[in-house]
Amino acid sequence: MSFDAADARHMARALELARRGLYTTDPNPRVGCVIVRDGRVVGEGWHARAGEAHAEVVALHAAGERARGADVYLTLEPCAHHGKTPPCVDALIGARVARVVAAMRDPNPRVDGGGFAALQGAGIRWAVGLLEDQARALNPGFVLRMAHGRPFVRVKLAASLDGRTALASGESRWITGEAARADVQRLRARSSAILTGVDTVLADDPVLNVRAFEIGRQPIRVVLDSRLRTPPQARLFRPPGKTWLIAVAAEPEARRAIERSGAEVVLSAADAGGRVELAGALRLLADREINEVLVEAGRTLCGSLVEAGLVDELVLYFAPHLLGDGARGLFHLPGIARLSDRIALDIADVRAVGQDWRIVAKPVYPT
Amino acid sequence: MSFDAADARHMARALELARRGLYTTDPNPRVGCVIVRDGRVVGEGWHARAGEAHAEVVALHAAGERARGADVYLTLEPCAHHGKTPPCVDALIGARVARVVAAMRDPNPRVDGGGFAALQGAGIRWAVGLLEDQARALNPGFVLRMAHGRPFVRVKLAASLDGRTALASGESRWITGEAARADVQRLRARSSAILTGVDTVLADDPVLNVRAFEIGRQPIRVVLDSRLRTPPQARLFRPPGKTWLIAVAAEPEARRAIERSGAEVVLSAADAGGRVELAGALRLLADREINEVLVEAGRTLCGSLVEAGLVDELVLYFAPHLLGDGARGLFHLPGIARLSDRIALDIADVRAVGQDWRIVAKPVYPT
Repeated sequence: MSFDAADARHMARALELARRGLYTTDPNPRVGCVIVRDGRVVGEGWHARAGEAHAEVVALHAAGERARGADVYLTLEPCAHHGKTPPCVDALIGARVARVVAAMRDPNPRVDGGGFAALQGAGIRWAVGLLEDQARALNPGFVLRMAHGRPFVRVKLAASLDGRTALASGESRWITGEAARADVQRLRARSSAILTGVDTVLADDPVLNVRAFEIGRQPIRVVLDSRLRTPPQARLFRPPGKTWLIAVAAEPEARRAIERSGAEVVLSAADAGGRVELAGALRLLADREINEVLVEAGRTLCGSLVEAGLVDELVLYFAPHLLGDGARGLFHLPGIARLSDRIALDIADVRAVGQDWRIVAKPVYPT
Repeated sequence: MSFDAADARHMARALELARRGLYTTDPNPRVGCVIVRDGRVVGEGWHARAGEAHAEVVALHAAGERARGADVYLTLEPCAHHGKTPPCVDALIGARVARVVAAMRDPNPRVDGGGFAALQGAGIRWAVGLLEDQARALNPGFVLRMAHGRPFVRVKLAASLDGRTALASGESRWITGEAARADVQRLRARSSAILTGVDTVLADDPVLNVRAFEIGRQPIRVVLDSRLRTPPQARLFRPPGKTWLIAVAAEPEARRAIERSGAEVVLSAADAGGRVELAGALRLLADREINEVLVEAGRTLCGSLVEAGLVDELVLYFAPHLLGDGARGLFHLPGIARLSDRIALDIADVRAVGQDWRIVAKPVYPT
């Protein structure tokens, strides 16, 4: 099936609606829906929050009787399974729509074509693939989690223009300006979890929450803490928001002390050095419905994730100053012995954020 | 005197003409001229090369009789002294032009208002200050040399996105891509001199010449080499192009060996550590008619220049890859002990150059 310009326009609108759920649908995907009858939009909807109505249901409700014989534009295949709400495909069939255009197939193994099959069975025309790249980009974590059992990993770092995150003394507040820090709040708000290492907790005692605006949820704070060294009074135990400590072993007493702080201790496999094995920890997070992980950590954890091939996106803020080569670097990459070992990047975006510059890049791993 | 839109248009054209001399006028300034009679351009000219005709003379020649009563737009005050050519102001007076508009006063102490005074004396109307910032930006080195006795210092460095110029082993070819290297050829071509340190010569044996295109001259290669350690067979002694070694002391024999390589040894003052004192070396270069210096050196010399407050512009090329914190940094800045000591930058330009990103910044020194 081919698509025309009107199809693309309506799907673009559905993507725009889906984006309204950027901070709130977690762990569900962001989904938008537009219903068009005789060339006129008769219903719009988006998924706002897990447990609440899906995009299709909201749009069908808005369209009412006008949905009959209409074209439905959906950024994701309609679900065909009973989750927290009944299958959306039943609602579409019940409304007797004429045609469903989806941007992408639902990678959720419980759907994965089942929505289209149900439409087919009911005699409703359907098509998939319109603006698919944009739809995938809207839910990078959900797609990876469903298709590969791991979350989308975004590493955020702030540095001087010469690539230094802190002085040798550890002094680092503030490298970047207010606008960059506000931008980081938006990165946190769209994330399911904020991942850090115990060394960062011990050095900086960060809170790692969303405080710039109200989104009705907080990302889970996750600390890689193989030997449970996080002190029970650490600020990231403070409500609102949950905290998980991923350890490789836990003395019952230390574990109880942590749990009294309101956090959860989760055991995961160790690597050869006795630290938390990173790929395993990320799989564990995916099993717990974590879609997007924002890493806010030091050069060691950030470097290890990069070297292990586990980073999907780097968001680097560069402040307009120099700190010199005695200061701390961005990534500890002991595996690079020759220039040919370097980690290649695909630069996706460069822009000014206040007085700082933000560069978004994707590591290009050998395939 | 105020300027109108036509004045600005003609001066913009004169600046465009001046720019044609970017690579060739050295040590003279780049200057352009437009002659307008009854709203029509009747002559254009630019200074092409030291010893050849000045912009005014070229334009007057083109205009011929039509220069009488015309308006003359000049990016720099007309000269009033005998240099390699007679004073241009005499030619303007002889041509009986009606009015001269200059973008800026000539900072050359031998002119410095003398051109305007001569016009005034001859009853020719004149004005100065139209598009002055652009005119100054065209000749940053000439202006600094004339006004302050020092050259314009531009530091070029190429690094990975995490701010690393080479591996710890020194391996650094090639950090950036072809387009960035071609851009560096243009930076060299506009420079009067390329400055490096003896450690870079010993480590990399660079040629430091302009080879991408023919400009009829080569920038002088200058090595800060306090104890004359540059080997006589170093590649930067190769013609075409001259080489100066700035030393603090020179054994007669070592000096003769260098001079047999075709280079010149110039003595300058030492700093407390016995190295070449940087501000003195730059004054020495200005005395030798060096307008723009391109520094292509390592983190030590680049860092020392930055810390000494001697850098006017940084041109940093960032390649899309990571080398990790074991690799070499951009600037050695031992004077930074606290964040408040950091060197502030004013980012002037950020753009893609091939696959790399170029950032042009100016250090903001406390005044």
